[in-house]
Amino acid sequence: MAEFDLVIRNGTVVTASDTTKCEVGIKDGRIVALAERLDPGAPTLDAGGRLVMPGGIDSHVHIDQYSGDDTVMADDFRSGTVSAACGGNTTVIPFALQVKGGSLRAAVQDYHAKAEGKCLIDYGFHLIVSDPSESVLGQELPALVQDGYTSFKVFMTYDDLKLNDRELLETFDVARNEGALVMVHAEGYDAIKFLTERLERAGRTDPYHHAESRPIPVEREATHRAISFAEIVDVPIMIVHVSSADAIEQIRWAQSRGLKVYGETCTQYLTLTADDLKGLNMEGAKYVCSPPPRDLESQKACWNGLQTGVFQVFSSDHCPFRFDTPAGKKRHGERTAFKWVPNGIPGVEVRMPILFSEGVGKGRITLQEFVAMTSTNHARLYGLAPRKGSIAVGADADIVIWDPEKKVTITQDIMHHGADYTPYEGFEVIGWPETVLVRGTKVVHKGEVVGTPGHGRFLKRDLSPFARPRGVRPTEYGA
Amino acid sequence: MAEFDLVIRNGTVVTASDTTKCEVGIKDGRIVALAERLDPGAPTLDAGGRLVMPGGIDSHVHIDQYSGDDTVMADDFRSGTVSAACGGNTTVIPFALQVKGGSLRAAVQDYHAKAEGKCLIDYGFHLIVSDPSESVLGQELPALVQDGYTSFKVFMTYDDLKLNDRELLETFDVARNEGALVMVHAEGYDAIKFLTERLERAGRTDPYHHAESRPIPVEREATHRAISFAEIVDVPIMIVHVSSADAIEQIRWAQSRGLKVYGETCTQYLTLTADDLKGLNMEGAKYVCSPPPRDLESQKACWNGLQTGVFQVFSSDHCPFRFDTPAGKKRHGERTAFKWVPNGIPGVEVRMPILFSEGVGKGRITLQEFVAMTSTNHARLYGLAPRKGSIAVGADADIVIWDPEKKVTITQDIMHHGADYTPYEGFEVIGWPETVLVRGTKVVHKGEVVGTPGHGRFLKRDLSPFARPRGVRPTEYGA
Amino acid sequence: MAEFDLVIRNGTVVTASDTTKCEVGIKDGRIVALAERLDPGAPTLDAGGRLVMPGGIDSHVHIDQYSGDDTVMADDFRSGTVSAACGGNTTVIPFALQVKGGSLRAAVQDYHAKAEGKCLIDYGFHLIVSDPSESVLGQELPALVQDGYTSFKVFMTYDDLKLNDRELLETFDVARNEGALVMVHAEGYDAIKFLTERLERAGRTDPYHHAESRPIPVEREATHRAISFAEIVDVPIMIVHVSSADAIEQIRWAQSRGLKVYGETCTQYLTLTADDLKGLNMEGAKYVCSPPPRDLESQKACWNGLQTGVFQVFSSDHCPFRFDTPAGKKRHGERTAFKWVPNGIPGVEVRMPILFSEGVGKGRITLQEFVAMTSTNHARLYGLAPRKGSIAVGADADIVIWDPEKKVTITQDIMHHGADYTPYEGFEVIGWPETVLVRGTKVVHKGEVVGTPGHGRFLKRDLSPFARPRGVRPTEYGA
Amino acid sequence: MAEFDLVIRNGTVVTASDTTKCEVGIKDGRIVALAERLDPGAPTLDAGGRLVMPGGIDSHVHIDQYSGDDTVMADDFRSGTVSAACGGNTTVIPFALQVKGGSLRAAVQDYHAKAEGKCLIDYGFHLIVSDPSESVLGQELPALVQDGYTSFKVFMTYDDLKLNDRELLETFDVARNEGALVMVHAEGYDAIKFLTERLERAGRTDPYHHAESRPIPVEREATHRAISFAEIVDVPIMIVHVSSADAIEQIRWAQSRGLKVYGETCTQYLTLTADDLKGLNMEGAKYVCSPPPRDLESQKACWNGLQTGVFQVFSSDHCPFRFDTPAGKKRHGERTAFKWVPNGIPGVEVRMPILFSEGVGKGRITLQEFVAMTSTNHARLYGLAPRKGSIAVGADADIVIWDPEKKVTITQDIMHHGADYTPYEGFEVIGWPETVLVRGTKVVHKGEVVGTPGHGRFLKRDLSPFARPRGVRPTEYGA
Repeated sequence: MAEFDLVIRNGTVVTASDTTKCEVGIKDGRIVALAERLDPGAPTLDAGGRLVMPGGIDSHVHIDQYSGDDTVMADDFRSGTVSAACGGNTTVIPFALQVKGGSLRAAVQDYHAKAEGKCLIDYGFHLIVSDPSESVLGQELPALVQDGYTSFKVFMTYDDLKLNDRELLETFDVARNEGALVMVHAEGYDAIKFLTERLERAGRTDPYHHAESRPIPVEREATHRAISFAEIVDVPIMIVHVSSADAIEQIRWAQSRGLKVYGETCTQYLTLTADDLKGLNMEGAKYVCSPPPRDLESQKACWNGLQTGVFQVFSSDHCPFRFDTPAGKKRHGERTAFKWVPNGIPGVEVRMPILFSEGVGKGRITLQEFVAMTSTNHARLYGLAPRKGSIAVGADADIVIWDPEKKVTITQDIMHHGADYTPYEGFEVIGWPETVLVRGTKVVHKGEVVGTPGHGRFLKRDLSPFARPRGVRPTEYGA
Repeated sequence: MAEFDLVIRNGTVVTASDTTKCEVGIKDGRIVALAERLDPGAPTLDAGGRLVMPGGIDSHVHIDQYSGDDTVMADDFRSGTVSAACGGNTTVIPFALQVKGGSLRAAVQDYHAKAEGKCLIDYGFHLIVSDPSESVLGQELPALVQDGYTSFKVFMTYDDLKLNDRELLETFDVARNEGALVMVHAEGYDAIKFLTERLERAGRTDPYHHAESRPIPVEREATHRAISFAEIVDVPIMIVHVSSADAIEQIRWAQSRGLKVYGETCTQYLTLTADDLKGLNMEGAKYVCSPPPRDLESQKACWNGLQTGVFQVFSSDHCPFRFDTPAGKKRHGERTAFKWVPNGIPGVEVRMPILFSEGVGKGRITLQEFVAMTSTNHARLYGLAPRKGSIAVGADADIVIWDPEKKVTITQDIMHHGADYTPYEGFEVIGWPETVLVRGTKVVHKGEVVGTPGHGRFLKRDLSPFARPRGVRPTEYGA
Repeated sequence: MAEFDLVIRNGTVVTASDTTKCEVGIKDGRIVALAERLDPGAPTLDAGGRLVMPGGIDSHVHIDQYSGDDTVMADDFRSGTVSAACGGNTTVIPFALQVKGGSLRAAVQDYHAKAEGKCLIDYGFHLIVSDPSESVLGQELPALVQDGYTSFKVFMTYDDLKLNDRELLETFDVARNEGALVMVHAEGYDAIKFLTERLERAGRTDPYHHAESRPIPVEREATHRAISFAEIVDVPIMIVHVSSADAIEQIRWAQSRGLKVYGETCTQYLTLTADDLKGLNMEGAKYVCSPPPRDLESQKACWNGLQTGVFQVFSSDHCPFRFDTPAGKKRHGERTAFKWVPNGIPGVEVRMPILFSEGVGKGRITLQEFVAMTSTNHARLYGLAPRKGSIAVGADADIVIWDPEKKVTITQDIMHHGADYTPYEGFEVIGWPETVLVRGTKVVHKGEVVGTPGHGRFLKRDLSPFARPRGVRPTEYGA
Repeated sequence: MAEFDLVIRNGTVVTASDTTKCEVGIKDGRIVALAERLDPGAPTLDAGGRLVMPGGIDSHVHIDQYSGDDTVMADDFRSGTVSAACGGNTTVIPFALQVKGGSLRAAVQDYHAKAEGKCLIDYGFHLIVSDPSESVLGQELPALVQDGYTSFKVFMTYDDLKLNDRELLETFDVARNEGALVMVHAEGYDAIKFLTERLERAGRTDPYHHAESRPIPVEREATHRAISFAEIVDVPIMIVHVSSADAIEQIRWAQSRGLKVYGETCTQYLTLTADDLKGLNMEGAKYVCSPPPRDLESQKACWNGLQTGVFQVFSSDHCPFRFDTPAGKKRHGERTAFKWVPNGIPGVEVRMPILFSEGVGKGRITLQEFVAMTSTNHARLYGLAPRKGSIAVGADADIVIWDPEKKVTITQDIMHHGADYTPYEGFEVIGWPETVLVRGTKVVHKGEVVGTPGHGRFLKRDLSPFARPRGVRPTEYGA
């Protein structure tokens, strides 16, 4: 029996810890050896001197998610995972969304059905708890955590998703008791609603006013509130898609006080600004996402957050909608007002290239930080380590071979997502994924999909070691 | 016609600006002259070398306020204003409480009826907006502001009082448009409820657990939330009865960013701690108030807040309930749980002596700061200047003659309030009010009431010059 | 004998506490009565409905100070005090400068000689300790403090003035033991020298590079250092002429920790920026002062510092040099480099008008704050209260009658200083002093000097009540 | 030719990125393979199920360093490296100390002579620049950086070592130009001297007063000063042996502003307090080191700094002196005063066990963080990566086999250092190094030295990638 199914040679292996020249031996989909020289007779993949890195893990993507009755997400699990793979990813963790009044377990089953047989790369599910009823908190959620859905997201805004303060606290409490990691969308519902109504009354309904309807204090307030609730319950939380200097200040403050508060930022907050929402002819609708892109100062703060450990993970918050279609962003924007524009932008395919180019290429972060924040830390935080997130013996052979010198102008033509535009049109990057292997199988090569949708498998996740409470509830309210 | 009805001689006149030896000439209830020597033939009040200061203004007292069907406040307007006067005050601003579902205008009329003919000293009313219905926000509240009720309080907690976030924003918006000053009780309802229920389930129902049910992060979170909403609306706010270092940190941070956020702290937060709630035999119930007293570190922070301008005013939050009566704190605590203990403590009579003794006497604050924080700043903030709050020509002759050397042990025996205990039992102070004049009329002398209830008049107040917005709404949402 | 020498009628009297319509009775140079109506037969000064305020006290001015052998200060005590008076001031506190190697006592005598018979308004002296030898610290300084020179300034930069760290600590220690108030010029010598030499080597010698040679971190570092030394010694300090957001952040931080650190900012830091140094033809030299003017963000921070109590006093740091004379700023700048440009700008005459117009006029500060920060707080901090700094019975009749509606364009033509330019040329203000009285004697009226130089008297000052230590040395190193 | 000289089997390999079960193949002193199964016939080291980690790198140790004429360091390079190895280390970076007036190059040669043939483990040298003369800054230092001495330390205190501010700036500037990393001992000389003299005058000469002579503000001030100078020069710096919450606050603040400021803390600051200095009979002298141990709050802050990325490295600051010998700490303390007690404590042998036990064992840090902060980050920061600091193909086979369950009571009997005591006497830990390999050679096994002094080699180090400036000098003063 052959020792290796495949050996990657002639590459520089990069992990969150090391940069080393070695060969990578793969057998049965797993990495079984790293060595200077492995069996010369084994089937070989020549890395051509490029970087051999852990495949990206994008722990914040929305795929085929229910988005209301009059719109539809641009990616199903086929196009979503193809786009992810083409961007260098080998795992995504999309969301299984509970609809208010519905069962969380049933939601999980629905999303399994949507994903089944379609995924090019591996996937897990975070839950979205939108209706924390007694049965959900008492039975469904604990059982689902046991079943490997070990993280869930709560929303502090959106009509159909938001939890009120009491619900947040109760849901945090379940997370604490079950050891699950809570992800928080931190924007305050009431303030947004208040501002939106006033903007509408004043006739300010263009996409740009989307940014005005949820200014920085709205995000900061919700961030502080979530942190305080987490402190009260003594449970770690992850603030996702942090966009502003003010919110970062809150998270850093919490961390400096010993609170276990984690942070995530996304591509758009490093590269876009609210001014992008000003495009004429509803072009601005292409950039409608929440929180909205901010300004140069907040971009700088987001970089600083990545550099100083305030953020552990960097994600795309891929949430694709089409622009110029009957149910698209443009029509919604034209017919009604910014608040009806489907909220979200595509980005799973460009997350890694943009961070690599703007981060590593421009000397803002190291290669190790790049790997940690695009892959390793996602695996650790969400219970996928040591199986995913590194190039290490025993890990799945989820690998991206990365050309650090390839110049690419990002444009819709080369995207594989289901959206009909990219908000990064014309953005120039240096560095691009060349070959992507999922469990040892090549699924993408030079921008071509060479794997078969359905290759991707569902990942039951362990409890996050980062979800452990500090051990003391500030108020000992008993067991 | 005599030039003066009364001349105060042989005193040291203290204002927020000056300490000077001079005589004070009074005519028709107003100060008409300050001079080294005034008409020797005029009727004379000999200050005996003591301090002659503006009478105290306590802008945060609760008198004869509806407190639920099964309890009754210990002070009506007679005993409440007598107690205030005996503590050196010449003006109080209690609250006219709207009951949910009720009319705000009607509430004001009710409280006028309660006060009419009973007050020993002058009084205004803040409004409490507990039900910001369309008619209240659109008509009643603007009209009442016009009528001289230029400040109102909102609660972020208490079942019967709390406003939700949207209501807070709408109410803040009315304040901005009308130029009224909003006072905020900043504790978060849901977190308190969440903790209280858990404490009860765990059988932790003693008064001490009152403090545990509303820990510091609960106050800090609500403070940050109120500040953020004020920033969004661009309206000044006053955070009342601030108790903790964490909340002070939030206010200072807001002030450093140019937000018009004002602060008040109270006697109990300089002198009591949560440990006082641990008294046996329900003695702890005597200290149940909200926010609860904290710890020595927070006491120190409150002093620092007074010294560095974070706080503008120092009040009592006088909210008296009886202890050992059928509807008293003790019975409520014994029969049920801390959450049913009527919430509030008496203090209007000791506010000035304690601040004088602990502050001026111990070198923590200056005489000028004492006057500013017990009188002058209250007048300025709440639209009573220049009529009240100073010893100046043209002002009402509201004067306290203060013996800076008198040693007094505070004890229930010498109190004039309606409560059957004082939480400051045994507290020793140096400095005590000797004589109190309201509009030139002596109402208290050496601890004896010498004036007539009914002497006090209602004060229609001007708009607060401190309630002016910064001029720019962060989000220009139109007129 | 007449009761009053003069009565000011028909004005609105403004103090740090009050705004009131009343008449001011003056006798023997002191205010002896404030009343609605004073003896109608007394000599009258009609204020014409204008504001009657305490005369300004400028506690930070340099007059006839030794400035090296090749330059001369533009103001002697005659022109300096005339200019001050014309700007609404009734007291100045210039510096008596010890020359390295010289006696401090002798320096004081020298400056008395310079001032004698020339001053239009009253004056005290701060000491400048440039050579803290054993005899200076052990004998001269304590004796001088006893003699009424109760404050002294130390420099952390300038070749001929700077104290090293050990000297700062020793000098602070004397201040603590004697109860004197230390004023600190907080810029770091070595960093400035380091940068200056590099700029010179690079040929960057224009006035603008003056600002680059002492960037904000240089001020911030020295501020933090001075604060830390004051904490170690446990002595209050005053950081003078604070110019930047960073330095303000340090002072606020110190205050929030309970340290007695006071702050002063000046006209130039509210109105000028480093860009003013860019003027062609050595025009930039007109703005060379230290710290240099900064940027709009720091201007905003300085306003915030005034509004939130970080700063107690507002001064001019008047330090006048001529521009276009043989020993003037222009020639020094042309012949050599920015570092030889005499360092300082004139401003004593415009301090009050600019703060009134930009502060009170634009709603940034109240009338009370204006009086406090231009007069009352100077008197309190530097041991002149209650004699100076207020309109109160018993105080000196140092009064400015202020026309709040007069529009003036500041221009060199109307200045009375000895400089041949004003850095505020063309600046438009609303509000100007009309009449100035020093101890009851009119010295300025409608921009004309009507008093006699020599009228001003030397002020022996009391110990500052603000100079008291907190009472505990962090390190108890014995008595 | 055999493929491997040695294979480590049956262990769990831990790196800064991963925890994985695999075998480690070693050839010619380097790691050449990591695999699930390597040539079964190769010579085997059975890890017995224990952890296989990168050998520790202690980048802050003092060995055989000149310490004045009347004392001698307790460790030469033999005992020092033996002790280090027994504590799980495979590399140390001691200091080559320039004596004032001496040549830096000559110092390096001296230390090479001291180390030659004696070291059990590998070693590099940091330089200590105590006399930054023109020739040192202009020639010696740049040349030495080129030669692989790519980091140097500067002192802000100690009579024979301290640089003044100008020297610090000039030395920082050389570091910037040469790409070297500066390490800063941040305590302020003058303040310490000032306090020491006063303590001595007051007869307070016991060891405890050592802590009082350098209180927290002394460290904080120097830290802020160093950060500011680094900002002015635009050069990264490493603040070493940070001991207090205040200093951590400064570093975090700098990092949040985008400054490249790194931090190190040490064993003593997590475990000792100033109270340890109070031991009778000069026992306190055993704990005299600088900065001194602080209090529980600072310990907590140091842990927080390790958890949140403020600190990148954890070192021992091993600086061993004997206690009860003629030139020992005790005699120095008895004869004179605390200031003469040789300053430093031993700790290279217990750094890793204590951090493992208190950190990993108590859930404060992860295994990955342990490896990063005891080894990997030292290698990265000081130019030893990828050769040192990880278990990766191509790296030196510097490995510690760690028994995570072994309980050890630290006591002098089991120490291998030259000191006659350990400050951690009686401290109980769980987890201890069992076997240590340096470049594939076993040097320690079960507490026994099995390698040969002289095995250790000198390491010429690369420039630190972390020493790159941000790219902009705040003041562009030209080339």
